[in-house]
Amino acid sequence: MKNCIVAQSGGPTSVINASAMGVFKANEELHYFDNVYAGINGIEGILNENIINLSHIDSEVINRLIYTPSSGLGSCRYKLKTYEDNKEEYIKLFEIFKKHEIDTFFYIGGNDSMDTVHKLSNYAKEHNLPVKFFGVPKTIDNDLPVMDHTPGFGSAAKFISTIALENKLDASVYTAKNVFVIEAMGRDTGWLAASSCIATLNGEPVVDLIYLPEVAFDEAKFLKDVAKKLEEKNSVIVVVSEGIRTADGTFLGEMGGTGLDKFGHAQLGGVCSYIKNVITENGVCKKVRAIELSTMQRCAMHFASQTDIDEAFNCGFAALKYSAEGESGYMIGIKRVSNAPYKSETFAVHTSKVANSIKYFPKEWINEEGNNVTKEAYEYTLPLIMGEPKIQYENGLPKYAFITK
Amino acid sequence: MKNCIVAQSGGPTSVINASAMGVFKANEELHYFDNVYAGINGIEGILNENIINLSHIDSEVINRLIYTPSSGLGSCRYKLKTYEDNKEEYIKLFEIFKKHEIDTFFYIGGNDSMDTVHKLSNYAKEHNLPVKFFGVPKTIDNDLPVMDHTPGFGSAAKFISTIALENKLDASVYTAKNVFVIEAMGRDTGWLAASSCIATLNGEPVVDLIYLPEVAFDEAKFLKDVAKKLEEKNSVIVVVSEGIRTADGTFLGEMGGTGLDKFGHAQLGGVCSYIKNVITENGVCKKVRAIELSTMQRCAMHFASQTDIDEAFNCGFAALKYSAEGESGYMIGIKRVSNAPYKSETFAVHTSKVANSIKYFPKEWINEEGNNVTKEAYEYTLPLIMGEPKIQYENGLPKYAFITK
Repeated sequence: MKNCIVAQSGGPTSVINASAMGVFKANEELHYFDNVYAGINGIEGILNENIINLSHIDSEVINRLIYTPSSGLGSCRYKLKTYEDNKEEYIKLFEIFKKHEIDTFFYIGGNDSMDTVHKLSNYAKEHNLPVKFFGVPKTIDNDLPVMDHTPGFGSAAKFISTIALENKLDASVYTAKNVFVIEAMGRDTGWLAASSCIATLNGEPVVDLIYLPEVAFDEAKFLKDVAKKLEEKNSVIVVVSEGIRTADGTFLGEMGGTGLDKFGHAQLGGVCSYIKNVITENGVCKKVRAIELSTMQRCAMHFASQTDIDEAFNCGFAALKYSAEGESGYMIGIKRVSNAPYKSETFAVHTSKVANSIKYFPKEWINEEGNNVTKEAYEYTLPLIMGEPKIQYENGLPKYAFITK
Repeated sequence: MKNCIVAQSGGPTSVINASAMGVFKANEELHYFDNVYAGINGIEGILNENIINLSHIDSEVINRLIYTPSSGLGSCRYKLKTYEDNKEEYIKLFEIFKKHEIDTFFYIGGNDSMDTVHKLSNYAKEHNLPVKFFGVPKTIDNDLPVMDHTPGFGSAAKFISTIALENKLDASVYTAKNVFVIEAMGRDTGWLAASSCIATLNGEPVVDLIYLPEVAFDEAKFLKDVAKKLEEKNSVIVVVSEGIRTADGTFLGEMGGTGLDKFGHAQLGGVCSYIKNVITENGVCKKVRAIELSTMQRCAMHFASQTDIDEAFNCGFAALKYSAEGESGYMIGIKRVSNAPYKSETFAVHTSKVANSIKYFPKEWINEEGNNVTKEAYEYTLPLIMGEPKIQYENGLPKYAFITK
């Protein structure tokens, strides 16, 4: 018997299941492995032998999983230590692989997961163990180096832009001046906040000001930016990254977290509520609304990008295909072949080039004022959000699959 | 010349434009009026003669407005005083009506707007002024009496349920116990929070606990409810109304608003962040996420209910039709004719029966524990969220119309 196992790791996305099902479907077509197993809850679950055989799952459920957001196989936030620091774990893991006759392990995740693939692949080579390891990219943050973009980003970008667009319409109905603040994810990089540049109305950008972690946040400058925009229009839309920080490196999200309410509860406001307070307390605008998109932006399959779903699936498919002749320790990336018409293809890259590394939003795509992005950012992001998802409906809602419980 | 004017008032919904366009399209078919004008920013805008002729707008834009969320004609929060308290305003308004040869005024809104229709209609009758006034219902809160439900509610319910469903999947990926709190709108009534009962996965409800303004909030009981659910499952989903309050009538949303951060800024947390703090500070669960759906739930046309859009349009259409022979001071309501298959029709009701009155969520649809809703609530809500909206797309996003600026 020659089996493979696929698992998911880190924060979910709308399309991570499409990648897992890409691995499974590729094997249905190519028959490289006798069984495709899934490790439930990532490497942590595999260590607990929480393993299922995907062939035992109804094919209708498999097809629905492609259009089901979040990690259908569960996830974990488990940073594998080095072999020297945790020999028992490595030994146990390879015993489990041997027991289930695992030839190949596919890990779908971001930087940390690629670090795991890298470590396990090296360990297997050094100890002549017959298991190969491959990575499949996943992160809404879009911060993996080498590749053009990551599966998960396009769908999150589409949701963020749609929310900006719709709430611009909502914020514009009254005659009173107002500011609407949207907080996007992205602790280290501004890709998600920047993606809101896609939203337009009558050809004009919807978002007036965008603040990224790549630019030091200056409160006085920010207040001036907002005041200036409020002179031009009634309703000003601001998008901020959760990771914006001041010149000395202090995260804004941490600055609002020290207040206590009258019961002594800590008031842990996010960046957007901090920003809201800054605007009102400084008298720049009385009417400010702030929304934190939180996990909604990483699981909004109901309005995901079909391009993103297809590419996520293709990455899983390509990983299985590559595994037959490819060398262990590699991962799949996405290359942009052309932008108009948009065309992408997959390629293989060694995990050492991706693990523990970050791709920042390009400085040259940020405007001189440091409060918005350029046309290049718009052109980069636009093709990634294209296409409406082919989801099934039941009783007026998307019909999602749920197999782990 | 015999003209009519339509205007929108109060908080926007996803389908309020469908009602306005229903009025316009009915006149295209029936030719009751020479012109259909729109008052921009409600009665406040009409007082400033901010009036446009809808026939001058491109028919393609009109068709897109039907599928554009928020008040395309602008809105206001303007409570008309009594004639005795503001004679000048009444006189000015009717002068503007006379100047533009307005025969009929259609006002799309909630309780307050119906109070305006009621007052103006009475004033016109008492002073023998030849202007008739009709109301068209609108509110995501679903709190207008007499009618089965209001346009706007179904689309908000669909968005809330979808977000609950998708974030249940997101919250379920890790093995650690966690609580996910969603805050829905509804200051006085719990219809919106209760509508989350629609979300199901594998036939099981997604939302574990629902708290409505109709039940006094008891913190100790709440913490017990959450702890009990956490014994049964890893991931507990809680939906709260923004209007929940303690037995003495204190809104929870006000209780979290007294903290100051280290800069002396007030930390104005919503109900969901208060609830989050209550859970963590009392040691019931360490991992709690809270999201406030805020204005997103009232403008999410990208996933609105087609049933809701159709009914909103029908209400506008019926209002114009009724205006030909009907008596001034009436509004259109929706009656449920049958539930399976779902069928509704419009009817006319005097605004005095609706103005300044509230329809609460039925006590008999709340479970004994006061922490969830019954099967009747599910069956009531389900038909209202059915159908995907027939929106146009451009560059991967909905193509919305924007005419007021």
